[in-house]
Amino acid sequence: MSKHNLDWVGRLKPDAPDGATTIAIERSRSNIDVDSLSQHLLGTEFLECQGRILALLQKDPLFSKERQANLSRPDRYMLALARGKRLRQMTDKHEWSDEDHEMAKYLTDDVSPYQLHQTMFRQTLLEQSNPEQKKYWMDLHSSWKIIGAYAQTELGHGSNVSGIELTARWDPKAKEFILHSPTLTASKWWNGSLGRTATHSVIAAQLLLPEGFDDKGEIIYKGYGPHMFVTRVRDAETHLPLPGIAIGDIGPKYGYNSMDNAYMLFNNFRIPHDAMLSRYSRVDPTTGKYHKPENPAVVYGSMTHARKRITMASRLALARAVSVAVRYCSVRRQFQDKENPNPSSVETAVLDYPTVQIRLLPLLATTYALHYTGKRMGEIYDATRSSIDGGNMSSLIDLHSLSSGLKSLGSELAADGIETCRRSMGGHGYGGGSGLVQLNADYLAKPTVEGDNWMITQQMARYLLKKVDLIVNSSANFAPSNTTEGTLFEYHKAQSAGFPPLDIYFDNKQLVSSFQRRAAYLAFETHNAHRIRKRSWNSLLVQLHELSHAQSELILVQNFFDALFAEKSLPSSVQDVLWLNFRLFALSTMKKSALTFSRARAVSDKDLDLLSDTILGLMQEIRPHAVRLVDAWSIPDYLLDSALGRFDGRVYEDLFNRAHRLNPLNKITFNPYYWTDEIVMGSNDNGKILSKL
Amino acid sequence: MSKHNLDWVGRLKPDAPDGATTIAIERSRSNIDVDSLSQHLLGTEFLECQGRILALLQKDPLFSKERQANLSRPDRYMLALARGKRLRQMTDKHEWSDEDHEMAKYLTDDVSPYQLHQTMFRQTLLEQSNPEQKKYWMDLHSSWKIIGAYAQTELGHGSNVSGIELTARWDPKAKEFILHSPTLTASKWWNGSLGRTATHSVIAAQLLLPEGFDDKGEIIYKGYGPHMFVTRVRDAETHLPLPGIAIGDIGPKYGYNSMDNAYMLFNNFRIPHDAMLSRYSRVDPTTGKYHKPENPAVVYGSMTHARKRITMASRLALARAVSVAVRYCSVRRQFQDKENPNPSSVETAVLDYPTVQIRLLPLLATTYALHYTGKRMGEIYDATRSSIDGGNMSSLIDLHSLSSGLKSLGSELAADGIETCRRSMGGHGYGGGSGLVQLNADYLAKPTVEGDNWMITQQMARYLLKKVDLIVNSSANFAPSNTTEGTLFEYHKAQSAGFPPLDIYFDNKQLVSSFQRRAAYLAFETHNAHRIRKRSWNSLLVQLHELSHAQSELILVQNFFDALFAEKSLPSSVQDVLWLNFRLFALSTMKKSALTFSRARAVSDKDLDLLSDTILGLMQEIRPHAVRLVDAWSIPDYLLDSALGRFDGRVYEDLFNRAHRLNPLNKITFNPYYWTDEIVMGSNDNGKILSKL
Ligand SMILES: Cc1cc2nc3c(=O)[nH]c(=O)nc-3n(C[C@H](O)[C@H](O)[C@H](O)COP(=O)(O)OP(=O)(O)OC[C@H]3O[C@@H](n4cnc5c(N)ncnc54)[C@H](O)[C@@H]3O)c2cc1C
Ligand SMILES: Cc1cc2nc3c(=O)[nH]c(=O)nc-3n(C[C@H](O)[C@H](O)[C@H](O)COP(=O)(O)OP(=O)(O)OC[C@H]3O[C@@H](n4cnc5c(N)ncnc54)[C@H](O)[C@@H]3O)c2cc1C
Repeated sequence: MSKHNLDWVGRLKPDAPDGATTIAIERSRSNIDVDSLSQHLLGTEFLECQGRILALLQKDPLFSKERQANLSRPDRYMLALARGKRLRQMTDKHEWSDEDHEMAKYLTDDVSPYQLHQTMFRQTLLEQSNPEQKKYWMDLHSSWKIIGAYAQTELGHGSNVSGIELTARWDPKAKEFILHSPTLTASKWWNGSLGRTATHSVIAAQLLLPEGFDDKGEIIYKGYGPHMFVTRVRDAETHLPLPGIAIGDIGPKYGYNSMDNAYMLFNNFRIPHDAMLSRYSRVDPTTGKYHKPENPAVVYGSMTHARKRITMASRLALARAVSVAVRYCSVRRQFQDKENPNPSSVETAVLDYPTVQIRLLPLLATTYALHYTGKRMGEIYDATRSSIDGGNMSSLIDLHSLSSGLKSLGSELAADGIETCRRSMGGHGYGGGSGLVQLNADYLAKPTVEGDNWMITQQMARYLLKKVDLIVNSSANFAPSNTTEGTLFEYHKAQSAGFPPLDIYFDNKQLVSSFQRRAAYLAFETHNAHRIRKRSWNSLLVQLHELSHAQSELILVQNFFDALFAEKSLPSSVQDVLWLNFRLFALSTMKKSALTFSRARAVSDKDLDLLSDTILGLMQEIRPHAVRLVDAWSIPDYLLDSALGRFDGRVYEDLFNRAHRLNPLNKITFNPYYWTDEIVMGSNDNGKILSKL
Repeated sequence: MSKHNLDWVGRLKPDAPDGATTIAIERSRSNIDVDSLSQHLLGTEFLECQGRILALLQKDPLFSKERQANLSRPDRYMLALARGKRLRQMTDKHEWSDEDHEMAKYLTDDVSPYQLHQTMFRQTLLEQSNPEQKKYWMDLHSSWKIIGAYAQTELGHGSNVSGIELTARWDPKAKEFILHSPTLTASKWWNGSLGRTATHSVIAAQLLLPEGFDDKGEIIYKGYGPHMFVTRVRDAETHLPLPGIAIGDIGPKYGYNSMDNAYMLFNNFRIPHDAMLSRYSRVDPTTGKYHKPENPAVVYGSMTHARKRITMASRLALARAVSVAVRYCSVRRQFQDKENPNPSSVETAVLDYPTVQIRLLPLLATTYALHYTGKRMGEIYDATRSSIDGGNMSSLIDLHSLSSGLKSLGSELAADGIETCRRSMGGHGYGGGSGLVQLNADYLAKPTVEGDNWMITQQMARYLLKKVDLIVNSSANFAPSNTTEGTLFEYHKAQSAGFPPLDIYFDNKQLVSSFQRRAAYLAFETHNAHRIRKRSWNSLLVQLHELSHAQSELILVQNFFDALFAEKSLPSSVQDVLWLNFRLFALSTMKKSALTFSRARAVSDKDLDLLSDTILGLMQEIRPHAVRLVDAWSIPDYLLDSALGRFDGRVYEDLFNRAHRLNPLNKITFNPYYWTDEIVMGSNDNGKILSKL
């Protein structure tokens, strides 16, 4: 850098009060017992595991995040590949459980090139293989002698899975399927872990079976829709694609740059009969006849699993961003308060400004809201899975619609929330030291993957309209089979009997009822438009989306309420603050759609007028607890990787360290004069350094 | 890649109808005269210049964007440095005007390391130098023999400029100023072009002048607040920082990675008397006495300039994203319409789904809304500048509040809009081929720079409250001096006389009145809270922000209306579609804040109930013109750098080309097996390739 002595730089300290002092005072202002709250949220097991794995990762320089943001995209992939291997080596060495390994991935925070091997490849094989297939593949899978991917989406089709173009034609003579991509748009696309890493893949293709001959004696094929196959795609020795297959990585993206999302094309590539996953449907190798699954809903299995995962993960993704923003905004000071009659010598912490609070504190409450619903969904999922495994499919449809609506809302709240947190931090929020750069870029995949957020809300809405069908055709002594039916039935009765007024400010239960009434109102309105006024489904898409979100918001509010109501073990200081967060979440959600609540007679005009000030008041009550409320999420500094969000508040020291000591660009001196092409000062490179570009 | 013959891949075509066919049909469905509309928006001069410069850039491989997304951060800076030099070389060679050079930067689309040299460094010297200083510095500036930056923000202070800590102490004996950073938080921070590139910088520092001696005979200094200085910071030969200065780049960021934002610290660094920019305030070198500026408002000059620039640029940034999304969503097809009695064999273009339209078409209308206000602001700015140059400062305050409110709203609409466009495109919107990755990352600086969006709305609000003060204290025959005063006065009268109903659907003028009434309502409500109910300013920040946005939305609607109303030269087909866009913009803006409009009696409940369906109807009318409406923005493919947004609709061919032919990661074969550390297959690298990480 400089030839001059820079010792004076090393001696500089931040202006007083420094971040460490400030954040200590912040913590002293709240009596929340962080440990109890952490254990309530995450459980002792999770916290123990986190501490143990963290210590191991921090010993290995491969897991240092200090310089990774400076890497080129190819190098970033290589780093993630090396880390993926190391994690598996550590799993063997330390005899890690699956949870341990998951924890290590969570803390490392790469989108791993082995990701699809560990999720969709495995999940699909587990769910859709017949017993022999399962035995064969699961052993290979767990040894990592093969690395698998999941190739469903194509260049031309993602949401509309039935529109995929890759065909799997049955050749009865050779008793093989022939995979073939008839067009460019038939190319598989986006498939993670497949671009450079995988040796194998699960592949969705249109099943074609011969059904006789045409006039010219050519075989006629009949289509049976998309089915799943599994096959090797790369050579075990050379790791090059097998003849008849073209594969590659699709290039740099918004995020996921450590992941090798693939394209893949087939040219009459032959795979054996048992490559077709045939737990539910199969082709008889002798007769060539198709046997269809008993219940077509089974295909929802892995999709529902993935949507549930996203919903549950959304709380920790958002909690990360909120932890950073709440800590930083309590350390960051800007402006003295001119109207204050006793002006303090220190400036105001920006978290004291209502315009900062209104962006952050409802999001802090949202992390808790997402938590209780995520937990509840996990329970429902487990219950449903066991009834499916016992042969009962009916609840899968419920779960599928639930998981679709919640995936859409949950990942939207988290994705938008992360960016809101980032912006709340002013200039430093835009810097690499925020720790939100990679989080934001990677997380923004979530609103799209596993079903586009604006599309899958149709599933929740369709489910609700069917429930309304049921109710409008029911008699007065209809017995609801679940809460949703119950709520809709109540609403239906009140339509003639009249709606009792709701007091949303003095009774939390009535606040929940307000959300019930508003969701039911939208369900009946939309039902009326579609079923009675016969408006087409597509013309109603905006309302359907609104309906699904309203129902999902109700679920978040309801589960938050139920969980706090049932909770007995937390200290009352913690309980009280959680109830404040419940109310802040509910009321700020209401504010966003105030007009619909008003139209639904779910809130009075008088109460609506008080909404903004009530929210302001709640935020003032929560404000002193904000830092401890994020502390409870126990997100380690290593995962946050954020100068702004450090637990110890030493924001400025860390920002300076990253710039002054860690930044590789500062090792090079440049030639800024335009009349020479030299880039590195004194190198005589004549601009040649750019040849690699 | 593969050793096998892949000729078959090269022969594949997208499934029919391909993008080129589809987009040609799209264009044939609208009779909008794109050329007239383009010229109306951008002018012949701009379009001619764009064509001419584009041709030159495309000849030079240095400007190819094909591989830049794969570069490491240091390489990305180097590429931008080389391009910055080349652009200046081309300026000399082709005798480019300032507009030509600006156009070349716009098309190249790097945040250039020379950016601050060309904007704030220049602007500040121009506005704040005395005549001798101006002569001296402007010559050096234009020759690029020096490269300048603008260093105001510090690690600890950005928004609160008066809080900066760097001091400039006057030494009367040596007749020099001494720049000194007393703390770490006094480090300059974020200053563009300074990290690695600049030789000089404009520097904001607290001016300290000696004011006698204390008991112990030590000099007492008195502070005069932040003032601007200019000095060399790097050696002319070695380009290393001068002794007593530490400078470096702050490291990778959310975007702006081609830019070298700096930190900079001073250790008793001496600069001569004439380093202080002294057009308005100065220190007498003989007496050491301070001469203050006649009107303190002058300091708003360059800030206002920068905010105006951001407001004007927001339309083209958003137009870029909307061009990509509208074109792609008209080419992208997904699902057959099952309810359609005459099902087409081709799938539905996703732009036909209302849930896609509701995200994109209001944004398309927003590009036009931003355009007319940007244009109007440019006119007001020029008029104000000349009256300032003529010594009249009063209108600068108006312009400052106007530019603050509009910068906040305009950059928010564009920033959020770009991301909405990206998400509307499903999976491919997340890919590098969207062309929105760098746009998004770079643009997200705008809500923060030149005044944080959530903070500077206070300036617009303060201005409005003062106007209300004026009006409530006025007599009945008050004569408003501008439209804002007029609107507020009308509202004031109606408060006693009663509000006439407004028919927003059948009269566009009444739609404008509705926005006036709602903004005035908020102004009076907030005025009441602060001036009458004596609530503190800070407790009202959320309302003040809302007020500023409401006023800024009114300005957008008003200018859109005025421009179309005055417009006589456009073909009526174009006029008609622009009026539809006016209505779509106004009504969808109203929908976002429907409750306030309702509370302000600016819209009837009956009309509110029709809002959603009216918006749906407008979108159906605009839909066939969507592609031509984005074509009119004339953003060249080179600038879009987007497979999805290509003018010719060849989306899939381009996506595939980027993946299969241009992606450097596909040149390397990897070893995926975890029991070896080898990363590149067969290289025996033993993981050593990672040493550079
Ligand atoms: C990071 C990432 C990783 C991925 N990993 C994998 C993987 O490992 N394996 C794999 O097979 N795939 C993968 N995918 C693909 C992913 O599953 C799809 O991108 C996703 O399902 C969305 O589908 P699409 O891209 O076709 O969107 P599209 O359907 O083209 O969406 C475009 C727009 O159309 C709208 N739209 C579409 N249909 C309708 C409708 N009926 N009604 C209303 N609106 C509609 C959408 O809302 C959206 O706004 C991945 C994608 C990403 C981004
Ligand atoms: C990409 C980039 C380039 C830049 N280039 C330059 C440059 O070339 N030269 C230069 O000198 N600077 C530069 N800056 C700095 C920039 O001017 C500041 O970051 C910006 O003014 C915001 O100030 P801040 O960072 O102090 O934000 P803060 O003020 O710390 O903002 C943090 C939060 O506090 C809130 N807040 C602060 N004050 C108040 C208040 N009074 N009331 C309510 N809320 C409040 C804000 O809204 C925000 O949410 C750059 C910044 C960026 C991101």
